[in-house]
Amino acid sequence: MIGLGPGGPEGLSGQAREALARAEAVVGYRTYLDQVRPLLAGKKVYASGMTRELDRAAQALDLAAGGLPTAVVSGGDPGIYAMASVVFELIAARGLALGQGPDMFDVRVIPGIPALAAAAALLGAPLGHDFAAVSLSDRLTPWELIARRLDLAAQADFVLVLYNPKSRGRDWQYAEALKLAGRRRPPGTPVGLVSRAMREGQAVRITTLSQAAAAEVDMQTLVVIGNSRSFVYQGRMVTP
Amino acid sequence: MIGLGPGGPEGLSGQAREALARAEAVVGYRTYLDQVRPLLAGKKVYASGMTRELDRAAQALDLAAGGLPTAVVSGGDPGIYAMASVVFELIAARGLALGQGPDMFDVRVIPGIPALAAAAALLGAPLGHDFAAVSLSDRLTPWELIARRLDLAAQADFVLVLYNPKSRGRDWQYAEALKLAGRRRPPGTPVGLVSRAMREGQAVRITTLSQAAAAEVDMQTLVVIGNSRSFVYQGRMVTP
Repeated sequence: MIGLGPGGPEGLSGQAREALARAEAVVGYRTYLDQVRPLLAGKKVYASGMTRELDRAAQALDLAAGGLPTAVVSGGDPGIYAMASVVFELIAARGLALGQGPDMFDVRVIPGIPALAAAAALLGAPLGHDFAAVSLSDRLTPWELIARRLDLAAQADFVLVLYNPKSRGRDWQYAEALKLAGRRRPPGTPVGLVSRAMREGQAVRITTLSQAAAAEVDMQTLVVIGNSRSFVYQGRMVTP
Repeated sequence: MIGLGPGGPEGLSGQAREALARAEAVVGYRTYLDQVRPLLAGKKVYASGMTRELDRAAQALDLAAGGLPTAVVSGGDPGIYAMASVVFELIAARGLALGQGPDMFDVRVIPGIPALAAAAALLGAPLGHDFAAVSLSDRLTPWELIARRLDLAAQADFVLVLYNPKSRGRDWQYAEALKLAGRRRPPGTPVGLVSRAMREGQAVRITTLSQAAAAEVDMQTLVVIGNSRSFVYQGRMVTP
């Protein structure tokens, strides 16, 4: 499992680049594969759409079982809201043996720069102290649990990083999350919004907790809500 | 501000490598500079010790004010428990102008692979769902706030990532943090410990919440406490 980091080929670590070079088959979400096209020449490429995570994991394990050095790529880091846990879950469900012997799967995770680090870099330094990452997608997690996490994290004065704020057919969770945070933090609390960090169409905005609901967000947006000490200085959001 | 990622030069992104190549002066913590020595040839290098963060920020701003393209390097990501917020705080305290005009500071943050992503990759996929990062250092944060964050994050069933579990002269916070987590989570909860991820002396261990207090940890160790659904499969820690 290889993390591509944000944006194009210049976002990969040297280690990730090397691992990708050794792969003969590459499995991934179409958008991420397109970002690193120049690195895929001569490889068998298996592109699929969003929400096909389990299919990708199964395909990768089948390819690897067939003897092909196989890479599963994720944008950002493979371990943070991405493919690594999906692949390990399937490995466990199938009862596969991990290791380097015959009939064993030599599985490695090569980290990448996560979306939260890329977004933070563009905003300034909003993650300068303790923070919590919460996905607003209730596709596989009940909203009650997500809401509880948001509320407790806001009480604890964590900087909040919201993944997947909105998608087609999932449009109220973002406003609800802001409302929950707003019960614990003043309306002037800085909020940073980063869409498509270091990719085409990048957008970086800084607003406040009371204004943030009006901002356009989608699945490609990361939302960072400051803690009680976060401030904005000349267009940069900073948490001491 | 440039993130070096974990380990040696192969941990940097292409973007970070390029930014570092353009710098004529490089300021950083000695250990991190040593990791990327081959990339520093011909540059003025200003190395300093741990806890000298504010000195490093001041030195970097002075060098930049003198007209030198200056890099402040951090291991991992500069935005997560590292130099970016320190530099921005000092910029704000000095009232410096940010931008590209004359007498302005053109400050950029180049992200790196954070320690938490590197540690997670070595453990398996423990950050597969919502998580909270908490530093146990009470040098600048009162322990009461740290304890409250740990307790609320444990209640919220976040995977917990503990930074700075122990240092010389700070030896009880780690056991106390485990105790707080243990009030909310069963004793068999998986705990991953990663020291010096992807560097010389790397150590990766997986234990349980009830056993973790016995493990050796230091400032270079990251501790990952699973949520209620985390499991261990053949030596890998996974959160679905």
